Amino acid sequence: MPSLVLLRHGQSAWNLENRFTGWWDVGLTEKGIAEALAAGAAMKAAGLDFDIAFTSLQSRAIKTLNLALGEMDRLWIPVIKDWHLNERHYGGLTGLDKAETAAKHGEDQVKIWRRSFDVPPPPLEAGSPFDLSSDRRYAGIAVPASESLKDTIARVLPYWDSAIVPQLKAGKRVIIAAHGNSLRALVKHLSGISDDDIVHEEIPTGKPMVYELNDDLTAKSRHYL
Amino acid sequence: MPSLVLLRHGQSAWNLENRFTGWWDVGLTEKGIAEALAAGAAMKAAGLDFDIAFTSLQSRAIKTLNLALGEMDRLWIPVIKDWHLNERHYGGLTGLDKAETAAKHGEDQVKIWRRSFDVPPPPLEAGSPFDLSSDRRYAGIAVPASESLKDTIARVLPYWDSAIVPQLKAGKRVIIAAHGNSLRALVKHLSGISDDDIVHEEIPTGKPMVYELNDDLTAKSRHYL
Repeated sequence: MPSLVLLRHGQSAWNLENRFTGWWDVGLTEKGIAEALAAGAAMKAAGLDFDIAFTSLQSRAIKTLNLALGEMDRLWIPVIKDWHLNERHYGGLTGLDKAETAAKHGEDQVKIWRRSFDVPPPPLEAGSPFDLSSDRRYAGIAVPASESLKDTIARVLPYWDSAIVPQLKAGKRVIIAAHGNSLRALVKHLSGISDDDIVHEEIPTGKPMVYELNDDLTAKSRHYL
Repeated sequence: MPSLVLLRHGQSAWNLENRFTGWWDVGLTEKGIAEALAAGAAMKAAGLDFDIAFTSLQSRAIKTLNLALGEMDRLWIPVIKDWHLNERHYGGLTGLDKAETAAKHGEDQVKIWRRSFDVPPPPLEAGSPFDLSSDRRYAGIAVPASESLKDTIARVLPYWDSAIVPQLKAGKRVIIAAHGNSLRALVKHLSGISDDDIVHEEIPTGKPMVYELNDDLTAKSRHYL
């Protein structure tokens, strides 16, 4: 039976400050580190094991994975890092906290951006300190100026199909350490959740979501550890 | 100019206890963790940067690498883990401390094993708790029963040639986080050190060794940061 665990990174500095983060690379808080270690310990205690791991190019997800694998004595498994698993790009909202966003754009507009499936936030302004288009981490990649959840799904799923599905089909046990919205993309796909409902799916930080999959990789069930 | 850094893992629990470790997977001490973080900070301060990392399948090297890359904001670079970079396998000495080894085999014999180029320690005894031949980490690999430094070199260098050299030739900046003897193999090769002298080359834990290489990958110079 194919085996898959999805793990959202532990609390980040900007989760704590309630700032839109997206592709900006912020670290874990002490609580986030503790969450990652606890996730690893819980997976080990539950008898879970992995053959390969996937994560994004963002430190908070990679560090969460490293800490969890360390707790499981599985630092040695292959870890594939890819930008397709990055968080949704929040465009011009990047770096703003809730109050700043509401002051700048109005509460109603913010709710639309947060809760709509296919409306992207405004693009990152030219010269923004959060512009990553010349970051060498993303060399050769068209860094988005902004993404809706729909846009995020449109780059996560092809990666799922081309990189992760073959591992599962080969019988590998897979863990994916990623972000609220890149994981929403996978949960929507695997569990057949509607466009309207997926925006309300809250994936908590640092809680392993265990998927039981059928041989055709449809989901039998899922639960949090 | 090709760029290469060799980094021995930080102090491990058995470095501290003076026990032969080899392929046994022991963790870093608090001092070892601090050494790894300091190595990352020193490399960042020196303006060093990397495009790809290589390490062994052993936690102390992987963790050292992860900690150092974290300090450099380079967790996102690809990390290739391979058993060819593992420590020398100490066979039947694995787990013994200096006093136990001397009591069991005599001081003179121990000196021969420690300091000879091509005399392997006795093989691991059948049923030893340190037998890793059925560890799934090494599935498909003929786990050695014991290795001399010469044996270690004989598996490190083909990996250097096939996996690491192509990256350097492609202009990638490479860091290798590994072990006292797998790094001796590389230093012997790169710096043209004799069989007699290489056994006396002490590579300290957690100190980045920076190689300046010519385009043909011969060594121009090396120094510790």
